[in-house]
Amino acid sequence: MIALVLEKKGELALRDIELPTEVGPDDVKISIHTVGVCGSDVHYYTHGAIGSFVVREPMVLGHEAAGTVVAVGSNVKNLKIGDRVCMEPGVPNMNSRATKLGIYNVDPDVQFWATPPVHGVLTPEVVHPAAFTYKLPNNVSFAEGAMVEPFAVGLQAATRAHITPGDVAIVIGCGPIGIMTALAALAGGCARVYISDLSAPKLAIAGQYPGVIPVNITEKKLADVIAAETDGWGADVIFEASGSPRAYDGIFNLLRPGGTLVLVGLPVEPVNFDVPASIIKEARIETVFRYANNFDRAVNLIASGKVDLKPLISETFDFAQSIEAFDRAAKGLPTDVKLQIRMPD
Amino acid sequence: MIALVLEKKGELALRDIELPTEVGPDDVKISIHTVGVCGSDVHYYTHGAIGSFVVREPMVLGHEAAGTVVAVGSNVKNLKIGDRVCMEPGVPNMNSRATKLGIYNVDPDVQFWATPPVHGVLTPEVVHPAAFTYKLPNNVSFAEGAMVEPFAVGLQAATRAHITPGDVAIVIGCGPIGIMTALAALAGGCARVYISDLSAPKLAIAGQYPGVIPVNITEKKLADVIAAETDGWGADVIFEASGSPRAYDGIFNLLRPGGTLVLVGLPVEPVNFDVPASIIKEARIETVFRYANNFDRAVNLIASGKVDLKPLISETFDFAQSIEAFDRAAKGLPTDVKLQIRMPD
Amino acid sequence: MIALVLEKKGELALRDIELPTEVGPDDVKISIHTVGVCGSDVHYYTHGAIGSFVVREPMVLGHEAAGTVVAVGSNVKNLKIGDRVCMEPGVPNMNSRATKLGIYNVDPDVQFWATPPVHGVLTPEVVHPAAFTYKLPNNVSFAEGAMVEPFAVGLQAATRAHITPGDVAIVIGCGPIGIMTALAALAGGCARVYISDLSAPKLAIAGQYPGVIPVNITEKKLADVIAAETDGWGADVIFEASGSPRAYDGIFNLLRPGGTLVLVGLPVEPVNFDVPASIIKEARIETVFRYANNFDRAVNLIASGKVDLKPLISETFDFAQSIEAFDRAAKGLPTDVKLQIRMPD
Amino acid sequence: MIALVLEKKGELALRDIELPTEVGPDDVKISIHTVGVCGSDVHYYTHGAIGSFVVREPMVLGHEAAGTVVAVGSNVKNLKIGDRVCMEPGVPNMNSRATKLGIYNVDPDVQFWATPPVHGVLTPEVVHPAAFTYKLPNNVSFAEGAMVEPFAVGLQAATRAHITPGDVAIVIGCGPIGIMTALAALAGGCARVYISDLSAPKLAIAGQYPGVIPVNITEKKLADVIAAETDGWGADVIFEASGSPRAYDGIFNLLRPGGTLVLVGLPVEPVNFDVPASIIKEARIETVFRYANNFDRAVNLIASGKVDLKPLISETFDFAQSIEAFDRAAKGLPTDVKLQIRMPD
Repeated sequence: MIALVLEKKGELALRDIELPTEVGPDDVKISIHTVGVCGSDVHYYTHGAIGSFVVREPMVLGHEAAGTVVAVGSNVKNLKIGDRVCMEPGVPNMNSRATKLGIYNVDPDVQFWATPPVHGVLTPEVVHPAAFTYKLPNNVSFAEGAMVEPFAVGLQAATRAHITPGDVAIVIGCGPIGIMTALAALAGGCARVYISDLSAPKLAIAGQYPGVIPVNITEKKLADVIAAETDGWGADVIFEASGSPRAYDGIFNLLRPGGTLVLVGLPVEPVNFDVPASIIKEARIETVFRYANNFDRAVNLIASGKVDLKPLISETFDFAQSIEAFDRAAKGLPTDVKLQIRMPD
Repeated sequence: MIALVLEKKGELALRDIELPTEVGPDDVKISIHTVGVCGSDVHYYTHGAIGSFVVREPMVLGHEAAGTVVAVGSNVKNLKIGDRVCMEPGVPNMNSRATKLGIYNVDPDVQFWATPPVHGVLTPEVVHPAAFTYKLPNNVSFAEGAMVEPFAVGLQAATRAHITPGDVAIVIGCGPIGIMTALAALAGGCARVYISDLSAPKLAIAGQYPGVIPVNITEKKLADVIAAETDGWGADVIFEASGSPRAYDGIFNLLRPGGTLVLVGLPVEPVNFDVPASIIKEARIETVFRYANNFDRAVNLIASGKVDLKPLISETFDFAQSIEAFDRAAKGLPTDVKLQIRMPD
Repeated sequence: MIALVLEKKGELALRDIELPTEVGPDDVKISIHTVGVCGSDVHYYTHGAIGSFVVREPMVLGHEAAGTVVAVGSNVKNLKIGDRVCMEPGVPNMNSRATKLGIYNVDPDVQFWATPPVHGVLTPEVVHPAAFTYKLPNNVSFAEGAMVEPFAVGLQAATRAHITPGDVAIVIGCGPIGIMTALAALAGGCARVYISDLSAPKLAIAGQYPGVIPVNITEKKLADVIAAETDGWGADVIFEASGSPRAYDGIFNLLRPGGTLVLVGLPVEPVNFDVPASIIKEARIETVFRYANNFDRAVNLIASGKVDLKPLISETFDFAQSIEAFDRAAKGLPTDVKLQIRMPD
Repeated sequence: MIALVLEKKGELALRDIELPTEVGPDDVKISIHTVGVCGSDVHYYTHGAIGSFVVREPMVLGHEAAGTVVAVGSNVKNLKIGDRVCMEPGVPNMNSRATKLGIYNVDPDVQFWATPPVHGVLTPEVVHPAAFTYKLPNNVSFAEGAMVEPFAVGLQAATRAHITPGDVAIVIGCGPIGIMTALAALAGGCARVYISDLSAPKLAIAGQYPGVIPVNITEKKLADVIAAETDGWGADVIFEASGSPRAYDGIFNLLRPGGTLVLVGLPVEPVNFDVPASIIKEARIETVFRYANNFDRAVNLIASGKVDLKPLISETFDFAQSIEAFDRAAKGLPTDVKLQIRMPD
């Protein structure tokens, strides 16, 4: 089957490759319609590895996908041929201790698309467990369906924050995940969300959404803005979505007593963490690893109109232009939030 | 001071009455601007009692109020003269066990406006603890400020529900508290809210809001609607806001396994409760008594535009017409959600 | 294979019956050592049905079991031949929505031993998924291993109560599940547990445990005891473990403001539920359906000595005397907590 | 009144000093019986400061105290003359935002005994708010009553951990707070607690308690012990009670997926925090600042016998020997857990 293959660091090819095609009793086969380009896909392309995950064999990229069911295994009841769907890219061992607890995202044996050595889905058809395949209502497009995966990261952050309705939140970092987190936090109960960054174009995109208040930290100090806007009390929730170790400097000054810090961004260097400051605020700190049990909730929020992700789709490429799409993504333009690739009909 | 006095069951008078005027060190004095008419005020008027609270002495009515600070006690730091504010009508014993736990709403010694023998605030000026007086931002009107109190009941329901972002909810009963609860549930993280009632005009008002889906149970069965809309899984959260014992018949059929039922409505008769059905679903059941610690959150949600309560203000009366306002409210017109009374300038 | 077969209501036989013997890749085969007699087993014997579960075909009884692994499927990693184990009797659909959420106990498709039409385990060997088979440490006997299942119900109650360390609890009803719940509540963080019943012999058994305080309600009113012992504040948690509708009369008078009521007992008649009383206390009400994800925790508590279930094993019968064991259990002697049946070596 | 006064860093005196004696309407006056010596008292003595709290004026030491009520303010209902009591040393602003939320420990305006410039209670009599004074049952001695304060820190840690009954925990650091935390975690629901340290005598003291398992990290690696004892899964909860930055190295290797790290110890240097490791485990991290709303729960646990603190009282000094007691405490003998000072009768 033809696929976008990462041959090795820096080398992509659209070529045929052997991929599984057998539909097991609990599986469905999906004809892929749209695939989003994720920062991790790009990072494997540009660096050949993320942490201990190293590309050693050619690997198909892509894990943000939507499409149409074209075959259904014998045990499958929740889906039928013709259903429009999106797919959760990580499949755990269903018998593991973590999975039984409902936290299958942290099952050490999880198999995740486009994470070496597991192939991704930039290819016309893919076989996937029905339990991790979610129906799209008619009013949710395939392009939106392919946005469910990155939005699910933000939604996991909003869920683990345990937002009290009416909370005031901060999101540090206005990249794609920061914006997703801000939208999820708003939809998830926050009254308003301050989002901070150094990049004016990124902040302008986030600022389109009512309730999201951009703070350009080249112009003013985030701590001053928050103190002024909360009568000195601080934010109820802070989402660290930049992955920058510098974001941790003074972060607890932004937080109200008894507030919550949610760690979404993955720093590459060690972080200097002010434990006494966290203790004096008696902060709760939550961390976010991908997502579990929230694709259905993400679809609900998109379908109801509470979350509109369409303005974040910056450009759509044909499958034949996949390598151009990745080269564009590798540039990291501040005006690009999400690039998508559409499969041929 | 002139005030709207409930002399006894069925008898209202606009007349002078002795009220406290001394501003203690932790108090503020507020010039009242707008007061909403609540079902409980009307019930004292029409029935002379609610449960064990019986009107035995003339009592000033009104507890949903907004106004302007005109005097400030010596210890007060969070407010100053001229601040536009709304007030939380229940004042607990600040040294009680419940208050120390942060659940001051269930302090047995709480003093609550317009609950015998405590006077309410349908009068030009009132003294109140600064700790229970909340500043209104400039973009929140006094009329909206006087809506904070009833909205806070819905917000307490949404808070105690522990909504997971993207939940699907049901509100049973489309009276003022049902609508407030639906709006709070949506703002608090639900993807969509089904609201059920027998009254088409009430449902039409609720149905104005995107995300609120009216279900007229004279036309279709709520259980059928929910089964169809959730693939047979059930709602994540049900808010019982009708106070009708009949609402409890089959209520757990509407709920997903592991879902939550929130009891907001106060039934006057005993309720036949299907304990086995609740156990088989392993339901969590939360109850709501007024509110605590959420006036600031309510103001946040109104100020950010996430919650728009203005369409629920059905008509505004001058203070001189207060008795007419109560007689109108006593009719319980299905097209009336909230009547308000405006004090003279 | 020989087994204790419930032929129909009132008729037991020790006879050969066809049972599955094939060990699938995710399964283990266990040589059964000890099986406890549960009230539900006895109820199928004496009544032929529990609610909608009706015995229509001969069914093997028994679901509280411990034994030794004698065969292991090809995928199994957590167990090996010779491991001493206990087994969780309910097996859900591993791909279901409830199971993915970690609440597999409320999966509508769960298959549960000795619940029609599923066979139980009063038979020498049984095949079971390894994921629901738990290793026993050396210091936990088979007899204790067979007590894990009923203790797990109490532990589920203690878990769902969300006990704050140092809480004061009440358990209503001193049957086997009441006692298990009291022990789990103590081990799970309560400072002390009041347990109420009409039966002095039952209360004497519970009263052996330090921290469990028996209250004989034929001698004094539970409400008076609790008021005296908590300075009028009430208990933090109440576990209703009697299944009696009368237990609900005035139950919220026993509860502190903001306290929790946990429903464990299954009443057979409808319950008159005082919704206003629950609301005025702003109570949280949790329900308990079997258990999920706690067999390992139960084993931990027994192994560490925090929970000693041995005094609750009233008598042990040989497998050949199984019918006598059931006839004894059917008498419901107040001095019997748990009868067990031991398989031949 | 005579008191143990810290004149300045390194200089103690038993001398007369002016202290408040007026009993306000919400206050009680207590005749002090026993006062424990806390590490923070000693630190002010040896270093003259803790962080930004600097001793600039003579200050009475001592904040772990029990005694007898000798006078009662006019509003006080929960206490009477002659009641044996222990006292919570931090008094918040009762009207503050944090206090209203029930988290008065993080109220920025809290006044805390023996924290500059607030005097402590190593003096015969003290006036204190009744709301922060707790009755001791007859079976709890004054010596135990004076242990409630340090135990409350451990209990706060156990509470914020949100222990699931049967959890396996680790406590890093076997100082007084580490031991208190281990005992609170056990009483609060853990099945067993591993406690690690470099000091054999300290571990021997902790190891007296059934369920507390000492791990001497000069002899074996904590990670190896935990992996072996949890089948490679990890601990459910880790309490960091050493305050050592080195404790953070590899700490998440000890934790199960989805587990909880509770920060109790205050490191003096910045901590190198492995954010990616926390995220991959999707850990929750809680912090502990003193305590709130748990003195009554601590008393409950001591009174019921679930927690026995008497073995931790290493030696008792007369008030006249207070300076010797502090000099002994300043040595930090590994066999000393708690030194106490008894007031003259």
